[in-house]
Amino acid sequence: MNHQIESEVRSYCRSYTTVFERAAGAHMYSLQGAEYLDFLSGCGALNYGHNNPVLQDALLGYIQSGGIAMSMDMHTRSKSQFIDAFDSLILRPREMNYRLQFTGPTGANAVEAAIKLARKITGRTNVIAFTNGFHGCTLGALALTGNSHHRAASASLLSQVSRFPYDGYLGAGTDTCELLQKMLEDPSSGCDKPAAIILETVQGEGGLNHASAPWIRKLATVAKRNDILVIIDDIQAGCGRSGTFFSFEHMGIEPDMITMAKALSGFGLPMSMVLIKPELDHWLPGEHNGTFRGNNFAFVTARVALEHYWADDTFAQRLNSKIEMLHSELSTLAHRYGFHTKGRGFMQGIDLRDGALAEAVRARCFAAGLIIETCGPKGEVLKLLPPLTISEADMLDGIGRIEAALQATLSQPILANA
Amino acid sequence: MNHQIESEVRSYCRSYTTVFERAAGAHMYSLQGAEYLDFLSGCGALNYGHNNPVLQDALLGYIQSGGIAMSMDMHTRSKSQFIDAFDSLILRPREMNYRLQFTGPTGANAVEAAIKLARKITGRTNVIAFTNGFHGCTLGALALTGNSHHRAASASLLSQVSRFPYDGYLGAGTDTCELLQKMLEDPSSGCDKPAAIILETVQGEGGLNHASAPWIRKLATVAKRNDILVIIDDIQAGCGRSGTFFSFEHMGIEPDMITMAKALSGFGLPMSMVLIKPELDHWLPGEHNGTFRGNNFAFVTARVALEHYWADDTFAQRLNSKIEMLHSELSTLAHRYGFHTKGRGFMQGIDLRDGALAEAVRARCFAAGLIIETCGPKGEVLKLLPPLTISEADMLDGIGRIEAALQATLSQPILANA
Amino acid sequence: MNHQIESEVRSYCRSYTTVFERAAGAHMYSLQGAEYLDFLSGCGALNYGHNNPVLQDALLGYIQSGGIAMSMDMHTRSKSQFIDAFDSLILRPREMNYRLQFTGPTGANAVEAAIKLARKITGRTNVIAFTNGFHGCTLGALALTGNSHHRAASASLLSQVSRFPYDGYLGAGTDTCELLQKMLEDPSSGCDKPAAIILETVQGEGGLNHASAPWIRKLATVAKRNDILVIIDDIQAGCGRSGTFFSFEHMGIEPDMITMAKALSGFGLPMSMVLIKPELDHWLPGEHNGTFRGNNFAFVTARVALEHYWADDTFAQRLNSKIEMLHSELSTLAHRYGFHTKGRGFMQGIDLRDGALAEAVRARCFAAGLIIETCGPKGEVLKLLPPLTISEADMLDGIGRIEAALQATLSQPILANA
Amino acid sequence: MNHQIESEVRSYCRSYTTVFERAAGAHMYSLQGAEYLDFLSGCGALNYGHNNPVLQDALLGYIQSGGIAMSMDMHTRSKSQFIDAFDSLILRPREMNYRLQFTGPTGANAVEAAIKLARKITGRTNVIAFTNGFHGCTLGALALTGNSHHRAASASLLSQVSRFPYDGYLGAGTDTCELLQKMLEDPSSGCDKPAAIILETVQGEGGLNHASAPWIRKLATVAKRNDILVIIDDIQAGCGRSGTFFSFEHMGIEPDMITMAKALSGFGLPMSMVLIKPELDHWLPGEHNGTFRGNNFAFVTARVALEHYWADDTFAQRLNSKIEMLHSELSTLAHRYGFHTKGRGFMQGIDLRDGALAEAVRARCFAAGLIIETCGPKGEVLKLLPPLTISEADMLDGIGRIEAALQATLSQPILANA
Repeated sequence: MNHQIESEVRSYCRSYTTVFERAAGAHMYSLQGAEYLDFLSGCGALNYGHNNPVLQDALLGYIQSGGIAMSMDMHTRSKSQFIDAFDSLILRPREMNYRLQFTGPTGANAVEAAIKLARKITGRTNVIAFTNGFHGCTLGALALTGNSHHRAASASLLSQVSRFPYDGYLGAGTDTCELLQKMLEDPSSGCDKPAAIILETVQGEGGLNHASAPWIRKLATVAKRNDILVIIDDIQAGCGRSGTFFSFEHMGIEPDMITMAKALSGFGLPMSMVLIKPELDHWLPGEHNGTFRGNNFAFVTARVALEHYWADDTFAQRLNSKIEMLHSELSTLAHRYGFHTKGRGFMQGIDLRDGALAEAVRARCFAAGLIIETCGPKGEVLKLLPPLTISEADMLDGIGRIEAALQATLSQPILANA
Repeated sequence: MNHQIESEVRSYCRSYTTVFERAAGAHMYSLQGAEYLDFLSGCGALNYGHNNPVLQDALLGYIQSGGIAMSMDMHTRSKSQFIDAFDSLILRPREMNYRLQFTGPTGANAVEAAIKLARKITGRTNVIAFTNGFHGCTLGALALTGNSHHRAASASLLSQVSRFPYDGYLGAGTDTCELLQKMLEDPSSGCDKPAAIILETVQGEGGLNHASAPWIRKLATVAKRNDILVIIDDIQAGCGRSGTFFSFEHMGIEPDMITMAKALSGFGLPMSMVLIKPELDHWLPGEHNGTFRGNNFAFVTARVALEHYWADDTFAQRLNSKIEMLHSELSTLAHRYGFHTKGRGFMQGIDLRDGALAEAVRARCFAAGLIIETCGPKGEVLKLLPPLTISEADMLDGIGRIEAALQATLSQPILANA
Repeated sequence: MNHQIESEVRSYCRSYTTVFERAAGAHMYSLQGAEYLDFLSGCGALNYGHNNPVLQDALLGYIQSGGIAMSMDMHTRSKSQFIDAFDSLILRPREMNYRLQFTGPTGANAVEAAIKLARKITGRTNVIAFTNGFHGCTLGALALTGNSHHRAASASLLSQVSRFPYDGYLGAGTDTCELLQKMLEDPSSGCDKPAAIILETVQGEGGLNHASAPWIRKLATVAKRNDILVIIDDIQAGCGRSGTFFSFEHMGIEPDMITMAKALSGFGLPMSMVLIKPELDHWLPGEHNGTFRGNNFAFVTARVALEHYWADDTFAQRLNSKIEMLHSELSTLAHRYGFHTKGRGFMQGIDLRDGALAEAVRARCFAAGLIIETCGPKGEVLKLLPPLTISEADMLDGIGRIEAALQATLSQPILANA
Repeated sequence: MNHQIESEVRSYCRSYTTVFERAAGAHMYSLQGAEYLDFLSGCGALNYGHNNPVLQDALLGYIQSGGIAMSMDMHTRSKSQFIDAFDSLILRPREMNYRLQFTGPTGANAVEAAIKLARKITGRTNVIAFTNGFHGCTLGALALTGNSHHRAASASLLSQVSRFPYDGYLGAGTDTCELLQKMLEDPSSGCDKPAAIILETVQGEGGLNHASAPWIRKLATVAKRNDILVIIDDIQAGCGRSGTFFSFEHMGIEPDMITMAKALSGFGLPMSMVLIKPELDHWLPGEHNGTFRGNNFAFVTARVALEHYWADDTFAQRLNSKIEMLHSELSTLAHRYGFHTKGRGFMQGIDLRDGALAEAVRARCFAAGLIIETCGPKGEVLKLLPPLTISEADMLDGIGRIEAALQATLSQPILANA
């Protein structure tokens, strides 16, 4: 193994200090054959587990048939089939009417495209983003991202974003949407009328904060009254992660644009997309492009994932019962040690209130064969992102390992401080 | 087929109006079974042809073995093997010493990372880019890109880039590097000392302009004397497209960073990378990240491509004889009709001096089963990007179709104006 | 009279539709000899009244003696004398230790200099400014100014400013400093660590909002803890307008920089200045310059104003008794009609809650010989800025005219809507 | 004298190390009574000499009559009279049709206003400025200014300006307008279509470079063809400094806007103005404002200066014979020592090619009672800006002192290097 010439920017490999070779479902296997239970799921990109056999079979068949691999934005059979499936299985049943834009296959690229289009449509440049939001690391997306670790080197270049407090940022008693509303409707507030408001319904990197439906509805109402577009960044919370396909279903809002990536292909293959209300599809041909926007392997697995998991509500129902179990077990565990949980759906965690503690627990989990990550401004939240397809037994097993690691860490405070 | 809900931003499908299904080597096949000769090669992403069987076999084997598909930046066996191969087959034989950063798998993301690092290292924000340069469509990369079609909607946000004339921009008699040198060394020029200079050695989108070795050497000398980093964007011209693995080999320069993407995976799979001189690898862990930066399918095909094509100079030698043939045939054709060729290596074209003419020729080529693109500020250059693995017979066949299309178009001026 | 070639940008002359010729104390006289009582005082630039005879005599003597008029930043006798007077009469008695920077003679220029220096010292670019703040119309100052009327045309260029709610912005019950503190100390808030916080203690243009001493103290404490500079923009509220020479005296804060202009020369002559804590005076010679930064006529009148009014506390005591009278009379008037007052010192007003109503009252006042302005986001506040030297009789006379205008307007609602 | 609390930013007082008290015509007098011949003239603000008696009398009379001193942008008799005089004596005789905007009384403020208006009118943000241009130190103006000494601390904030080489920048043989034209008309050049081009016809700070009439005409033609506004910054070269009232008279161009300041008031009093073609006067009332934009003392002296010097061509004719003498004498002197002259009109200088040499000569001149400045990127040009009203005798006296200083310096190279 020769990793010494990989850049210092590498990160996860510092936490999960082994070399992985194979993976299946909720498990990853190292070169030496050690088995790991995966509560990270490619940061939410592997909602259907590693190497999901249904998708794998379809992909192997496609490759063996000589199916085209990459096609930029030419028409291909696999893209057409994906579009049809997305329309008939996802959009129409939800009475949603959107255009699909395939962007360069990163979440950041989808965000860049959405923001660019919003600015083009409105002729305005300001965009509203929220505290602890995470939207990517390219310059336009980074301007929307809150994290100073990512922003620092580029801070003087990150402009035309007005930052507002997310739901709950000032505690339960304060409706932070009041400030947004007041400043948007005060001609002397100094907040230039924005092109768009972008937000995650659950802040996956920012600490599993989630916005309530009433807060989001109020925000959407204020936006509409002021002719401002609403963009839901569903890159991490979408594709079922929150319990429904889109994270905002049943909230009573109709976003102007939706960004999707991560679990969209279902197999961890790079793919991203912007959903755009038809009347806002003001793009000129090729105005936002990117060589890899036609990843046909991803079109294939993405389509099969829709057909297999979202053709009826069997999968979602089963998922929601697992979510209830996850919430119940995690809350019990958290309260037992004086903590509380955060998040919703299959993106929940325990707020350990201390980044060093959370890191110590995470390291113990890994030593015990559990891959799990921390998040939040100071890395203080232990974040569970199991595959949506995980078995109850594996889920409970993982939670058990977390409890063991937490208990051991709390009983050895000296190590926790190390 | 249901393409009506794909966004208006779609572009290539407007030129190549069929639905593709399969592809092999230099050929693509429509759903109806029509065969097309591909002189576009995924915009330079398919240097070894579609579904190259050597790479395909390796990929199928990897998938069938349950190899991990995506791993963010964890260590995996397939990544390690790629790194080893890149180091031993590409870097060491060329006495190049670089760190590898895997970025979100788009060329734009690699450019964003390189520029961000250059700004971080130097503490400066200005970057020099050139007329007709193309570096991507995300905000940081777009600021470097010259094309107004892509820049227009974001123009007020594209800052901290000083634009200079590329080699030859003012005609053969003017050394445009003189202006660069004068302005960099004049404390009152108004060109703030830049962090970096970024350039393509051949401008694939900008019209197949290529910079001479002396011009690039002079630029590198001026940059070094003024403590400015040089970034070569080898996304389109790299991976053999210019005749050598890197486009700047034998030019006597040592770039501070090199961006790579497109043909890097060899199979059209999304993958991109920044090469960084070790002493400049000032990244903090995770400072620039992206979910899909560990596309293991791409690591596999990329490694096998290196092993199969770049382990010795057989492939390069054969390629260079094809390049000579391409240049000779294309020049003869061009001169016959009063035009001249542009570009070098396997990215050459004919400057038809008129975008409408070039588009008419392109459309006729497509009607005759040849996929070929135009480029340049006004789309006036017919650009040939055949697979590097194309047979001489196919290459000559394609050039023949071009001549037929050109002749037919020139003889029917009315149609050309349509 | 030939005003038709003056630009459409002219503004006050549209409200005060006569041609003025002479002025003395609290009165202005039109070309036709009509007398106006001036409650505007050159927007706070004429604190000692028009053509104050003490200053006028000194100025005439200086001119007659052949005293130098403009000297850029050369040493002159009149500048030295001003510096001495400012040091001995203003700074030392208040135990304040500051360097004096004379900038181009506009308030905006002083603000530009202060912000530029703060950014230079800290190496950061972000600056915090507040809702309804007004700091000038040049690009750097405009970025800090809240008013959309002034910002609109330049909005896409106004960057690197984070906007926070001023004291009281969300009503009496909400401590807006909490949000500032939370976001400054949250590494993931998205508010890049700022170079400085700039604020007015009374927002003269923004609607006579004033910040409480505890709020400002808390803000200063948060700033110091986070190594952020505090700049008090005392351009309108300074030079006695608030009741003390500086508006923040007795608040228990020590600003890092203070910007001054408007009434500094005492005679309405262009002059502005930045006070800088000595340890922050990191300017290079000439780094921020401007031809008219040495207006010696202004140095003369400014010095005499200090000597005459601020050598002891006689003037301030008398001023404060007038402020009490003003507050008492204005409150009584306001409450009589169901309104309330805003502001403090000699910058108070009545919040009429309706810009059209306020404009109608203002117009009636002018018709009755009283020059008075409105302010606030929608022009809803009638603002009184009488000369500090006004007689009680004139003050009461003016308030009487306001009441008459208010009464008449309220009794003729149809006209008020016109 | 107590200068120790003046900020380190002070500059001229470091070169002219005395304290000035009085001034008359071309002479300044120190507190100790020493006489200095002034070849700096307030950086071109004192074209009619210090305390010009005609203007002084008018000003004294105005003050003694109780004339209003400052009026913001209300109508006043003195403003009206100035407007009338400017229209009848300057604009109409030259068949020029412009609106007058009075800005905050600094040159930078006029530049900020002009650029802001150009951006508003066109809806574009980019502005073209030239190498070695100087337009002021506020953020918007600074972005246009070339000097790195002024730009350095703000560099990351100076955006939306494209920098082009001024006439002659690349030597006599290169027409730098070719690059401008090519890049403006190439849709892929990366130079976003600008709102305006701003330039000085003689670069007073940048080294007395002057643009030829054909170059400026070509630039104006290219601008008009591409619907780009042309702004002439006549702040230093205007008001007769170049030999005619405007520096571009007889060049055959009609600028869209003209910025004026410095010598406009004629007496060194702060005043500035933008001339705007009537059809471009798209300002909303008060959209760009500033407290001191109505400096009535300046209106009085400015009007009298126009009446006295520009009512017929007597003054200009006499000035032009002095310019010939200046040029002849200076050229002879320069060539005698192997140097050459730069500039035109009454802003000429000697290029000493070495900043240290120029500074040594300047210091010797001051020791010999001559106030003179250096300019240029490295301070290498000795710049003569005598009052336009200087006598031939004084002019020759000053040139004599320069020669003596130059000779002495060149003969003592060791001191020159100190």
